[in-house]
Amino acid sequence: MTTRMAREIAEQPDALHRTLQTLLPRRDELRRLAADRRHVLFVARGTSDNAATYGRYLVEIHTGLGAGLAAPSLATHYHVDRDLSDTVVVAVSQSGSTEEIVETQAWAAHHGAHTVAITNDADSELAQTADLALVTQAGRELAVPATKSHTAQLAAIAVIADALGPDHDRLEPELDLVPAAVEAVLHERRGVEEAVTALDHADARLVSGRGLAFATALELALKLEETCLEPVRGLSYADLRHGPIAVVDRDVATVLVATREGPMLAGMRELADDLAGLGSRTIAIGGDAAFQAAASVTVAGPDLPERVAPIGLVVPGQLVVEALARRLGLDPDAPRGLSKVTQTDP
Amino acid sequence: MTTRMAREIAEQPDALHRTLQTLLPRRDELRRLAADRRHVLFVARGTSDNAATYGRYLVEIHTGLGAGLAAPSLATHYHVDRDLSDTVVVAVSQSGSTEEIVETQAWAAHHGAHTVAITNDADSELAQTADLALVTQAGRELAVPATKSHTAQLAAIAVIADALGPDHDRLEPELDLVPAAVEAVLHERRGVEEAVTALDHADARLVSGRGLAFATALELALKLEETCLEPVRGLSYADLRHGPIAVVDRDVATVLVATREGPMLAGMRELADDLAGLGSRTIAIGGDAAFQAAASVTVAGPDLPERVAPIGLVVPGQLVVEALARRLGLDPDAPRGLSKVTQTDP
Repeated sequence: MTTRMAREIAEQPDALHRTLQTLLPRRDELRRLAADRRHVLFVARGTSDNAATYGRYLVEIHTGLGAGLAAPSLATHYHVDRDLSDTVVVAVSQSGSTEEIVETQAWAAHHGAHTVAITNDADSELAQTADLALVTQAGRELAVPATKSHTAQLAAIAVIADALGPDHDRLEPELDLVPAAVEAVLHERRGVEEAVTALDHADARLVSGRGLAFATALELALKLEETCLEPVRGLSYADLRHGPIAVVDRDVATVLVATREGPMLAGMRELADDLAGLGSRTIAIGGDAAFQAAASVTVAGPDLPERVAPIGLVVPGQLVVEALARRLGLDPDAPRGLSKVTQTDP
Repeated sequence: MTTRMAREIAEQPDALHRTLQTLLPRRDELRRLAADRRHVLFVARGTSDNAATYGRYLVEIHTGLGAGLAAPSLATHYHVDRDLSDTVVVAVSQSGSTEEIVETQAWAAHHGAHTVAITNDADSELAQTADLALVTQAGRELAVPATKSHTAQLAAIAVIADALGPDHDRLEPELDLVPAAVEAVLHERRGVEEAVTALDHADARLVSGRGLAFATALELALKLEETCLEPVRGLSYADLRHGPIAVVDRDVATVLVATREGPMLAGMRELADDLAGLGSRTIAIGGDAAFQAAASVTVAGPDLPERVAPIGLVVPGQLVVEALARRLGLDPDAPRGLSKVTQTDP
């Protein structure tokens, strides 16, 4: 039986294509909204926050603007009085109905921010109350673990970075490659079953990536945790070396994510070697041939330039998570204790 | 036998007193350095990054300036070209010798930031190359898990927030209460052994807090992880509700940290109730009587106003971690695989 999660994973090339076609023409509006702004502040939770993490890196790398992640409680509970007249706030929520995100967007507007909402529902309060709504075209998502809505958020974020970046260096030609690259990953499925076996046989799991791929590590850790009902950390390799590496031994399987190129690859290769030296089974997702050669198991990643690669890099991880849930006899579509729209304060 | 870690935990009232006496007179210099600045950006890793998380919240709440945590790889690997002429960068490192922190501070200065270093070594490269060095007076720290150097960092950060905050609302009178409140926690040790038993009997552990106490949750998760060699996540209750709560059942012990007052207490009480409903053994550190009544085990926190409470709130958690390591037959002073000065890129 095909799970809903598996079907929604498979819909991603279409969802990405539709989202990019719909949102790329909005770049002039985005540029006008950000014309006098020096900072981009993302507001999100959960899977959407992992998408925002990609945005934080991509905006700084590609546009030179400052970028950061908001702590919503500063708005919703501490009612911080802060001047945001130098800032564009980007609120990200699949449903557009999570109250603390809606409330934080309203707080930001009240303090002078220009606001952009990224949501999958044009009628949601978040979309209706933003200065500019970027509505992703993922279609309705029924499985509780977000897949196509998440990659559509990543695409929307890349459109923002493209709009705010330099004219002489557009992301658009790279974005055009994404749907087909994701299609190829789905078609190939290389290494997925071997990765499931390695994860199944471990007592504990952790995920590491760095730089632009750090967002992918966070998202796969969240997915593994929700699906397999075990605590799973997603760590940059820097933070991993600053303490948590103490937990790694032969009973810990480590998932390492990397883009096919870029300044993080050398460090990720060294990390794979070091973790193998500690006895860990290492599962490489993406990266180049040397990175994959350093790992116990390799899962094919998307063939994409580094800046847009995180949109596709999460997809082989989704395949692994869905298959692992089935191997463990769990329902990938409905992890225990979770519902589709999460309210922080019940 | 008393461990080094236990001795260094006990030295904290003196270390905090010396640090505050030394650094409070530097507030005029800090004010001059930040006179034309709108943002504070913290640069740190590991335990120091947890201290910076306190700074991020306290600066926004108390001063109205924007505050955030840097991603060092944007400086060291992506060489982002960003205008930091509106920013004070605060680099935090116990040793002052972690290369990526030194390098990120230099990058920030090159891009127009004014720089403040918080370190325990006046002769370190970080201190020597900053515009202004705040040298904590923790004395030499020998146990690998940072305790007194961490709380001294928290005190230094509170001094910065006091300097940049409003004249009519000084933190200094609250800071003056901290050393004695920490002394009282150390003297009382209430609930420490019961917490150790609850943690020892669990299969997995997680830590939650929110707002100003979120930094404490992150630090205790890191300490539990380093010491007990098990993955431990520190989560805001908001992020916990957005997914990871799926992992909680009767085999998971949850450590909840809260200040004695403030806008987060009601939510933390509800979280304690909900986690108990899932069967988890809940260990409350700090908070008020209602919060403690909702938990399975309570550990006394410091009697301090919310804004400065995180400086002392980590201390009962340190006592629990040190005692848990001994209960498990491990050496609290030297967790496996870690050394005192961590370099990110070996």
